[in-house]
Amino acid sequence: MSGLDLRLERVLAPVADGMARMRAVLESQIAEESRAVLDMTDHVSRFRGKQLRAALVLLSGDATGNATDEHPAIAAIVEMIHLATLVHDDVLDGAKVRRRVACVNERWDNQTAVLLGDFLYARAFALSTDLSSRLASRVLAETTRRICVSEIEQAARRYDFDLPEADYESISGGKTASLYSAACELGARYPGGREDAGLLLRKFGWEIGLAFQIVDDCLDVVGDESIVGKSVGNDVEDGKVTLPVLRAYALADERSRAVIRDAYTAVGPEAFGRRAARLREVCDLSAGVEYAMAKASSLVARARERLGLLEPSAARDALADLGDFVLVRRW
Amino acid sequence: MSGLDLRLERVLAPVADGMARMRAVLESQIAEESRAVLDMTDHVSRFRGKQLRAALVLLSGDATGNATDEHPAIAAIVEMIHLATLVHDDVLDGAKVRRRVACVNERWDNQTAVLLGDFLYARAFALSTDLSSRLASRVLAETTRRICVSEIEQAARRYDFDLPEADYESISGGKTASLYSAACELGARYPGGREDAGLLLRKFGWEIGLAFQIVDDCLDVVGDESIVGKSVGNDVEDGKVTLPVLRAYALADERSRAVIRDAYTAVGPEAFGRRAARLREVCDLSAGVEYAMAKASSLVARARERLGLLEPSAARDALADLGDFVLVRRW
Repeated sequence: MSGLDLRLERVLAPVADGMARMRAVLESQIAEESRAVLDMTDHVSRFRGKQLRAALVLLSGDATGNATDEHPAIAAIVEMIHLATLVHDDVLDGAKVRRRVACVNERWDNQTAVLLGDFLYARAFALSTDLSSRLASRVLAETTRRICVSEIEQAARRYDFDLPEADYESISGGKTASLYSAACELGARYPGGREDAGLLLRKFGWEIGLAFQIVDDCLDVVGDESIVGKSVGNDVEDGKVTLPVLRAYALADERSRAVIRDAYTAVGPEAFGRRAARLREVCDLSAGVEYAMAKASSLVARARERLGLLEPSAARDALADLGDFVLVRRW
Repeated sequence: MSGLDLRLERVLAPVADGMARMRAVLESQIAEESRAVLDMTDHVSRFRGKQLRAALVLLSGDATGNATDEHPAIAAIVEMIHLATLVHDDVLDGAKVRRRVACVNERWDNQTAVLLGDFLYARAFALSTDLSSRLASRVLAETTRRICVSEIEQAARRYDFDLPEADYESISGGKTASLYSAACELGARYPGGREDAGLLLRKFGWEIGLAFQIVDDCLDVVGDESIVGKSVGNDVEDGKVTLPVLRAYALADERSRAVIRDAYTAVGPEAFGRRAARLREVCDLSAGVEYAMAKASSLVARARERLGLLEPSAARDALADLGDFVLVRRW
């Protein structure tokens, strides 16, 4: 375990029991009588990840004195929705399939990914309809819709180097922060009522989630693949112009801008998988990254300030620490 | 309009008003403030189709004296789930993308299809959580899960010429009949209670839906593309061994079986899009098709018999006629 792993484990200690219950629910939900489905869900369990969204449900419940027996199930539903989005993100378009095959002849099965993601969404919604209150179904169905709309918007704005920062925020927020936000809101107010606590944590979750996405975008352009634990440079390959690049582009002169655009759109088999490296070679991204990280820091600072309205508790401290963790994480 | 179009319109006349309301709900639900999403949903409206599942919600409501103001919304939700499954069926695996591109250089964008399908699912669930009773959310989330599981099972059983007929039924039923069944059950018992009426219509819907799928499978191997209105032979291309082929295979001698298997797995660029034609050339499928159609007929007959337990009404007659329509339809 790295120092950051240990740090995260310590941050989540106040909800360790709830996280264990959440994992038990998650495992029972993705278990299926069907052999074919089991083979696929086995594959998904490798994606476990940091489960920050689930932790936020539990911590928000504890920090607002609102924890219920159903919170671990809600946390599991939130993680399933997150898993479904990850699985569907793996589906490649035709161009990329061809490019990948040309390079590495890797086995891709898009249909499998689509069906598995659909299965996870359906399981998540089915479980939410078993809860005693409809609030979770309502909030999460609406959140899922928003995630999809934002992903569609993002796809439509590829290669747009003049994307206004407000649009970047609303797209990144919609695709990532909305689920953080929903996790915190549900933690604070499920099964219902308690609008004030809900709104407070909803805003907290949005800010933490947006900061998380901004850090992700920075790691994707300048991160070390062996630490990040997933391939970096995906955004450049996909034509996604994220905040650090938008800022670097805005600061650049006309000649440098052309060089940045060329790095994104370089063609030929040798370009595949090399575009991000090329971007780093031709352009000093540090000012863009610095700007983006400052933005993420200020979001986390604002989020932490909100916590001042809550009673002191171990869970409240953990929420604050989670905010800091989002900034220092390297994976 | 063909004679069959007119016939369907006449069958659905008792619920013409409800269908118009259903379409209004559907249109308002897939309308979005986002330009990028609108471009995609415009594309979906071309898929309108027969909307039989929506009609079954309304007819089941009327035939059981259970129609409510919310029935058109439920019908719209059912259609949205159906549309989402259609859109996701269009996602191709890597092999097929390459094959298609090699042949026709058609533009495929898998990511678009995935996001659009996800959006439709999310909209459908979000709308269901706005209804006065949770029954629709519960039944439809569980139905969606079952559809996904069955599609995964189907993918796992490709090229299985020894698939037992019971497995074919449970897979085809799960992927198609389950939504028909849910549509009828919700029509008969939404917002709740009325388990007997629900069970009766649920069985009716299952039988009609399974018959529909069997007819679909027959049309795919022997249908006329210009009448069916979509490309035929997809099942053979996809390696799906459907009832007419399973039966023809069971009746064939060892040499003919090898010929059938070869038709499914023919390789080379000239084989693409030609496998179904080749199957028809090398194998007399008529006994298999006859057997499958007899099975579909007997399912519809059983479904119609169930209607004898309901009071006579125009809607009950329409349900019976819809059963017949499923058998005679050529598209």
